[in-house]
Amino acid sequence: MPQLPLPPGSTLGILGGGQLGRMLSQAASRLGFDVVILDPQPDCPAARVSRAQITAPYDDPDALQALGRLCDVVTFEFENVPAASVETLAEAGALVAPGPTALAVGQDRVDEKTYLNAVDAPTVAFAAVTTLDDLTNAIERLGLPALLKTRREGYDGKGQVWIRDAAEAEAAFDAIGRRPAVLEAAAVFQRELSIIAARGHDGAVAVYPLGENVHKNGVLKTTIAPAAVDPATQARAEQIAAAVLDGLDYIGVMGIELFDMGDGELLVNEVAPRVHNTGHWTQDGCVCDQFEQHVRAVVGWPLGPTQAHARIEMTNLLGAEVEDWRALAAQPDARLHLYGKHDARPGRKMAHVNRIL
Amino acid sequence: MPQLPLPPGSTLGILGGGQLGRMLSQAASRLGFDVVILDPQPDCPAARVSRAQITAPYDDPDALQALGRLCDVVTFEFENVPAASVETLAEAGALVAPGPTALAVGQDRVDEKTYLNAVDAPTVAFAAVTTLDDLTNAIERLGLPALLKTRREGYDGKGQVWIRDAAEAEAAFDAIGRRPAVLEAAAVFQRELSIIAARGHDGAVAVYPLGENVHKNGVLKTTIAPAAVDPATQARAEQIAAAVLDGLDYIGVMGIELFDMGDGELLVNEVAPRVHNTGHWTQDGCVCDQFEQHVRAVVGWPLGPTQAHARIEMTNLLGAEVEDWRALAAQPDARLHLYGKHDARPGRKMAHVNRIL
Repeated sequence: MPQLPLPPGSTLGILGGGQLGRMLSQAASRLGFDVVILDPQPDCPAARVSRAQITAPYDDPDALQALGRLCDVVTFEFENVPAASVETLAEAGALVAPGPTALAVGQDRVDEKTYLNAVDAPTVAFAAVTTLDDLTNAIERLGLPALLKTRREGYDGKGQVWIRDAAEAEAAFDAIGRRPAVLEAAAVFQRELSIIAARGHDGAVAVYPLGENVHKNGVLKTTIAPAAVDPATQARAEQIAAAVLDGLDYIGVMGIELFDMGDGELLVNEVAPRVHNTGHWTQDGCVCDQFEQHVRAVVGWPLGPTQAHARIEMTNLLGAEVEDWRALAAQPDARLHLYGKHDARPGRKMAHVNRIL
Repeated sequence: MPQLPLPPGSTLGILGGGQLGRMLSQAASRLGFDVVILDPQPDCPAARVSRAQITAPYDDPDALQALGRLCDVVTFEFENVPAASVETLAEAGALVAPGPTALAVGQDRVDEKTYLNAVDAPTVAFAAVTTLDDLTNAIERLGLPALLKTRREGYDGKGQVWIRDAAEAEAAFDAIGRRPAVLEAAAVFQRELSIIAARGHDGAVAVYPLGENVHKNGVLKTTIAPAAVDPATQARAEQIAAAVLDGLDYIGVMGIELFDMGDGELLVNEVAPRVHNTGHWTQDGCVCDQFEQHVRAVVGWPLGPTQAHARIEMTNLLGAEVEDWRALAAQPDARLHLYGKHDARPGRKMAHVNRIL
């Protein structure tokens, strides 16, 4: 295991070469680190701003061995990292952050919600579902409407279906492939918030101001941050974040989606053990953004400041919306972040724009 | 020639892969451009954050042909670009910015000073020197002390020598290799300022606030910006910058070093047709830094905003000073920018830190 803090000139490995890996790589190179990307897609967006790419599946043992030997520390742009991959990386001599416990908990929605409630980070009521009988019982207990999600995988609204009538139960279970699932009670929330938090190897926790999110078709559309919240709400969110990170001995940045229930109560919707789309506003609103913060955490540097110096509206540009670059490039209050993706498929995250409010 | 504005996904070529090329590349990738570096040193700092490197001398015709074909636009991180190289790039189909006129003027100190005075951007008194007789005559006319510089090349105090006594003239001429030279009268200035300005393909000019510079042993040590100047001084600097850029039909960012003579008079010390060390403060003091500004200018995008949202002290870390990263990483007001250079030779520019004042 390398000694911390890692000096500039060390090499950071990233599993995943999409936009999150790309922005992590850019932040790491500003701090003098070299970056190697592992991604099955040749010439992926992150590789084009990094020192090298290993082109292989995420569970390829030889590729993981090679990455682990090349890198002093390895991190991830996504949460569904196979546990065996983490083991292989560690065996090859790399520090791996966040660690296997945090990744495992985040990969299973039942484990995640059970963990969250145990550390006083309350969620909506939920029930594990393995059979159709389980689902019927869960509907009786939680009421309808309720949201059925696969226990594992799924993001941006994929692998989940709303049940509004008990008669829809079987069709819903079929729709998610009758896979192990979780049924979640509907949250009657006032708005969706999220908080980006980081924890270092020394246990220090740094939390950014809350953002307020608007989703469209299950995909994040905008975040406004700092959100207009009272200090008690910010304090409660910071308390939740610290509890969640401390309990996992977490290293790195985590995104925590929250439901603001409107009476001072916050429920955790879900957590992502990685940099998070709802934290992109920090690139233009904070001196140290979530990407640099994650790098600082995993290489053992002190965490950076988290206060906002500007209020930002972050908007995702999906698919052909990226064609708006011409108009946006001419707006002095619009800060463009393009991901270098050449194929603007419908719904694909192509870019985001941070507008200074 | 490609059509402007270049869309994201286009490729930018950069001659030179040091820290300026690296920071240009990072800015270009944020806007969705791919970057190819031409540099004779394998695995140079800029290449490690770019899509590809062509490893060859700057005047290698095959390498320049290849770069020109790969890239929609090619720019430079240094001013001593051979005119033949620019021609080869243009013949291969790339737009080249800034153009050959601007580069040629900046490569010869006599041509540069002659040009500057012609566009009402006054300099110190100077004389061209080819022979020792020229030098003796020039000393008589300009008085002593005076600064003898080679006409071409030389930077960071190299290729120049002070003459304080007429008896030193021959030794000084020997010291610069008896090359064609310029003798400059000593400027009794109050302080050294500089201004970073950009000009787009459409002729628009954008100018940043003045910075105040401190040099040590001929090398920039710190810039504080915005400098404490009265509005008339800023206005005069902007007027000089616009005249210099317009007169060359210049495309891109230029750094202009100025002597503040203390009675409202500004003299131009020298100009650099590229992003400039005295503009690094813009990375943490402005929404659109000099690197993004240069990219915007050369790809034909509208220029970005130039006002400062913070006052910054930029400090260069030379040689072993980069070891201060440990202490600096822990200071929340210090923003570190490391260049990924692995060999901290004495005096080498390794990093800079922007401190928010």
